[in-house]
Amino acid sequence: MRAPVRFLLLATLLAGAAPALAAEGMWMPAQVPALGARLKADGLELDPAALADLSKPPMNAIVSLGGCSASFVSPEGLVATNHHCITASLQVNSQPGRNLLRDGFLAKTRAEELPAAPGVRVLVMEALRDVSAEVLAGLGPRMSGEARTARMEANRKALIAACETSPGRRCDIRSYFGGRQWYLQRMLEIRDVRLVYAPAESIGNFGGEIDNWQWPRQTGDFAFYRAYVGPDGNPAPQSAANVPFRPGGHLKLATGDLKEGDFVMIAGFPGVTERYRTLAETRAYFTDIYPLQLRLLSEWSELIQREARTEAERIATASARQRADNFKKKIEGQMAAARTADLIGIKAAQEKALGDWAARPANRRPHALAIASYDSLIDADLAATRTRLVNQTLDRALLLRAARDLVRWAHERQLPDAQRSLGFQDRDRQALVDRLTIIDRQYVPRIDRAMLEQALAEVRKLPEASRNLALETALAEVGLDRLYAETRLADRAERLAWLDRPVEAFAASDDPFIRVALASYAADRAGEARAREREGRMHAARTAWMATVAAHAATQGRVLYPDANGSLRFTWGQVRGRALQDGVAWTAFTTPRGILEKETGEEPFNSPPRLLAQARAGNWGRWASPALGTLPVNFLSTTDITNGNSGSAVLNGRGELVGLAFDGTLEGMLSDWHFDDTITRTISVDARYMLWVMEKVDGAQHLLAELGVEPGR
Amino acid sequence: MRAPVRFLLLATLLAGAAPALAAEGMWMPAQVPALGARLKADGLELDPAALADLSKPPMNAIVSLGGCSASFVSPEGLVATNHHCITASLQVNSQPGRNLLRDGFLAKTRAEELPAAPGVRVLVMEALRDVSAEVLAGLGPRMSGEARTARMEANRKALIAACETSPGRRCDIRSYFGGRQWYLQRMLEIRDVRLVYAPAESIGNFGGEIDNWQWPRQTGDFAFYRAYVGPDGNPAPQSAANVPFRPGGHLKLATGDLKEGDFVMIAGFPGVTERYRTLAETRAYFTDIYPLQLRLLSEWSELIQREARTEAERIATASARQRADNFKKKIEGQMAAARTADLIGIKAAQEKALGDWAARPANRRPHALAIASYDSLIDADLAATRTRLVNQTLDRALLLRAARDLVRWAHERQLPDAQRSLGFQDRDRQALVDRLTIIDRQYVPRIDRAMLEQALAEVRKLPEASRNLALETALAEVGLDRLYAETRLADRAERLAWLDRPVEAFAASDDPFIRVALASYAADRAGEARAREREGRMHAARTAWMATVAAHAATQGRVLYPDANGSLRFTWGQVRGRALQDGVAWTAFTTPRGILEKETGEEPFNSPPRLLAQARAGNWGRWASPALGTLPVNFLSTTDITNGNSGSAVLNGRGELVGLAFDGTLEGMLSDWHFDDTITRTISVDARYMLWVMEKVDGAQHLLAELGVEPGR
Repeated sequence: MRAPVRFLLLATLLAGAAPALAAEGMWMPAQVPALGARLKADGLELDPAALADLSKPPMNAIVSLGGCSASFVSPEGLVATNHHCITASLQVNSQPGRNLLRDGFLAKTRAEELPAAPGVRVLVMEALRDVSAEVLAGLGPRMSGEARTARMEANRKALIAACETSPGRRCDIRSYFGGRQWYLQRMLEIRDVRLVYAPAESIGNFGGEIDNWQWPRQTGDFAFYRAYVGPDGNPAPQSAANVPFRPGGHLKLATGDLKEGDFVMIAGFPGVTERYRTLAETRAYFTDIYPLQLRLLSEWSELIQREARTEAERIATASARQRADNFKKKIEGQMAAARTADLIGIKAAQEKALGDWAARPANRRPHALAIASYDSLIDADLAATRTRLVNQTLDRALLLRAARDLVRWAHERQLPDAQRSLGFQDRDRQALVDRLTIIDRQYVPRIDRAMLEQALAEVRKLPEASRNLALETALAEVGLDRLYAETRLADRAERLAWLDRPVEAFAASDDPFIRVALASYAADRAGEARAREREGRMHAARTAWMATVAAHAATQGRVLYPDANGSLRFTWGQVRGRALQDGVAWTAFTTPRGILEKETGEEPFNSPPRLLAQARAGNWGRWASPALGTLPVNFLSTTDITNGNSGSAVLNGRGELVGLAFDGTLEGMLSDWHFDDTITRTISVDARYMLWVMEKVDGAQHLLAELGVEPGR
Repeated sequence: MRAPVRFLLLATLLAGAAPALAAEGMWMPAQVPALGARLKADGLELDPAALADLSKPPMNAIVSLGGCSASFVSPEGLVATNHHCITASLQVNSQPGRNLLRDGFLAKTRAEELPAAPGVRVLVMEALRDVSAEVLAGLGPRMSGEARTARMEANRKALIAACETSPGRRCDIRSYFGGRQWYLQRMLEIRDVRLVYAPAESIGNFGGEIDNWQWPRQTGDFAFYRAYVGPDGNPAPQSAANVPFRPGGHLKLATGDLKEGDFVMIAGFPGVTERYRTLAETRAYFTDIYPLQLRLLSEWSELIQREARTEAERIATASARQRADNFKKKIEGQMAAARTADLIGIKAAQEKALGDWAARPANRRPHALAIASYDSLIDADLAATRTRLVNQTLDRALLLRAARDLVRWAHERQLPDAQRSLGFQDRDRQALVDRLTIIDRQYVPRIDRAMLEQALAEVRKLPEASRNLALETALAEVGLDRLYAETRLADRAERLAWLDRPVEAFAASDDPFIRVALASYAADRAGEARAREREGRMHAARTAWMATVAAHAATQGRVLYPDANGSLRFTWGQVRGRALQDGVAWTAFTTPRGILEKETGEEPFNSPPRLLAQARAGNWGRWASPALGTLPVNFLSTTDITNGNSGSAVLNGRGELVGLAFDGTLEGMLSDWHFDDTITRTISVDARYMLWVMEKVDGAQHLLAELGVEPGR
């Protein structure tokens, strides 16, 4: 075998060992043009500059649902997203005997479309602007933490107020790089959103919790909403007079075969990553904070499973349980992945490199100082995080939270709008209305009370200084029996009636929840003041530390992307399986074979008979992949996403829709802290599987036509 | 995605879904030229006719070790085979304090080469001739079974005697297609075989029983012998005067990169397959005979593990235990694979198709009759098989078997050579000497006795008619204490001295083993006579049945290949991983990553420190695969092999050596009964791993030079 003859290209293709394409990075749209050469080399066929232009395709089709991502896929406002992103809308439209969650839903006509859950919004990004200078204006080195926080908040409120001048626009300012940069985004906020189509749960959530965060995967995690606006084209409350929204652009379905090795890109709204955490923070999360969260979530989920006995109760609590289970599994996965990959070791090495660099004489004064200053604040911040996690469990009791929100709203309303706290201005009123409204669909008194008892047991373990003793005392005085028996807040009209009433009216109320909320108000505000002081000090220290990180990266020629913060981001990579242990690999695609292999007839492996029949017959119609010789169901890619990207459009190099991202894998969860493209994979539902289910299983031919698919043979 | 654009070729390459190349078939060399068009289409670059010519490369380099396959790899008689094929030679050269099995062996010079175990032969195929007409001459439809057997045996002995005229040639006649065809093979029988090189057991048997029949696999299952002949070029007993054999041809190492999808072919000596068994036989094996064998092997292996307490005892019993474990795991694998694949259902469908065809009016008389006639004999044949398996456990007692062989030999010697039984002619004397000699290295009295006790307990469960009561009585009379205490057969000189003594001398002996053997002789022969009658009747019925099978296949245009029978065969396919459950696959190659992943420091995952250091350093030298970007260790291919193929050269399309076949996988074991190229894979050690171990781990540079490898950088 002497000197091996080199057949590099062919060999590379055959062995599937193609050079990894860029995968790490949740890039801000404005950063993309500078990455153009790499993008083109990796397979982008569009002009890279197009990806920074929010007014042009494909970016003008990308929308946020607030917590999920989505995209316009027709000129008539049809929105594609994940099934698991519309669960609440299926839930609110369900009732015993008409279980849309289980059976799916298809509107045969526009008239049959159902209102989405209260609070569901389609947010269309219109503008994104760097407002760092404005947000940070007026900060001084000797300001107190509270003063810093107050100044930045005032700056932000002013910017937002100036931005939200057109009707139906929502403006929003987010922090990047630990508060070093701030961007203002202006979004069209579409409030009339309707449910168009969702497959049965046994397709849309095939595999359920068992397969969640797992590969191999065969989940049809897709669904469609439609966005409606007033006849004048501006967002409007739900109304029969509304008309479908005509987006600036919409995604077109890919026509070529998507295959292993192909370039793919994803634009969406990733929620939170922690890639710039220090070693000390990382260690605290993995040894202390995550285990605490895990326990709180486990106990919550177990409580719901134990207490939700009827179908109605299970429907009411489904989304809470799903949220708890999903988050719990994610934390478990992150902890296991961190152990396997030695995250602490990776962080220690990064920190040592940074520290060594900062210790050089030329760097010492600004950088070593910044590191030391940040380090000195971390412990107190982590302790506050732990306390907050425990106190937040009280919010699981829906009426208690509603009462506290109402009391807070009453107090804030005493101030002019511009002086109120963020989240309690007039612009936030509708969100509060929605929260108060949806309680109807989620509230089960016995279960709510059990959650409150569980939360109380938890907060009582905190040190006294961290507890809201006024709240606890008030609760103890009224007693939980009376609390739930005598409250009138379980009635939606009653809850909404309290909105906008003056503080005096609350003081005169004998509703036990309102009395408890009033009693706890002062302590709540005192706790908030302490948090604002801490937040301001942390901001000063963290931005200095991030400046050090950025300076260090610059010396190495590395361009930094910010941690995910719910804002619009761009990532690219390729369709790619993954090596497991030596000799075994995940393939890039799954197929209906896996559905048949997993079928048990029992949830969550109980596909609809019609799907099973079509799959057993191999009736793939037009939707088989020539390369696979069968129908693709889900696929893996080396793209960099996290929670919040759920529902994101996956596009090929021509910007055409090839699938919807919906999950990652347990092993890959390390990516919230550290990205490694040999282990992290995005799981997407292949567009061809969506179309096949619509055509062969659910008979949604009219939607296929709307998507531009010609009638089948 | 409408009408998918078709990129068939590229798509196919990328997805690894290339059309399967021919894989089923253990073809006789003479059948290969007729397959030439398929071979060329699949990637053979040689002239297909060359593969039928035993006097030309590459076929003149392929040799048998009797039970294993091997090949010449240098003009100086260097023979490459599997590590597990030379275990006995490592064992006989080991002693406490010098454990070649554990530590490996490398002769730095020819003078340091060690004699292989007694009985080891290198058999060089010189000629292969169809002698069906001669073997079947004189058979008549109304002959008794015994007469048929005797007539064929006489025909065979005459043909063999006529063939074995040149010195050092061994001739041999084997049955094909159930005795319808017979081929005479003439082989040069090289008797001076020396051990040249074997890596440490932790390389050569990496993974041990845990990984046996498994993938992923990282076993360096290779070793080298050298063949020596007398100064006149003819085979000779071991002697310092002997010189390395100069083979007619030897294999050259491949220089190109072997990659997934590449054409590969294997020539070797597969032992036994059962692909033409009927439904009734198949059912009996899987429900009755295999479970029995499994139990007998398990109990044997457990006994050895329990009783072999010292290092010396473990060395002595190593090959017996390895044989038992290997066979046991194979049977378990076959049983599991048969269940998974529904072998019984497959056989039933095949049999129904054959029966339906045979039932047509035109076919009824010859074919339906042949099927019925064969069916009528099967039950008795299967019962005899079960009895034989149990009685054979007595042969595990080495001195009992030796005594019975010696007694039989003495009786046979009373006849002229041509009239003696096959296996007891003068030409078989050396094999007997070897068997009697190697007992020295394997005999542990306490363990031998325990095996005999175990066997006796087993035979006592048989129906009386199936037992050798004379033997049992004689054993009971002498008692096992005296048997082992008083025998002198434990001494090699004493054993060999008995060879060629007359029957009268045996009758006068007071050695308890000889007395037992003498007592059992008449019953042994009576049992053999019954077997010969059955065998003759089965031959008549089975050949008629096979004629029916062949006629049926001919109507479908199918060419049949014969079941494996230890003769030279040819198979081809491609380097190819395998799909597991949907979304998961075996990759075609393993790499040193797997060695490091499995390393525990404990047997069988205790690689030598030097190997670990080189692997951790990624010091692959010239041996990395460009396609893989690392060193290939083992690879999978869709070739059709079985036991006996161990050590077979794996060749690329140019006839160059790319590896040595050494195993299959549990799931693929069905192939002894039914070949399915979606599940059956051959496991081979990549030649590049062999060369890397030799160069970087064991410092065998002089052997690399002999293999034609130029000195490394």
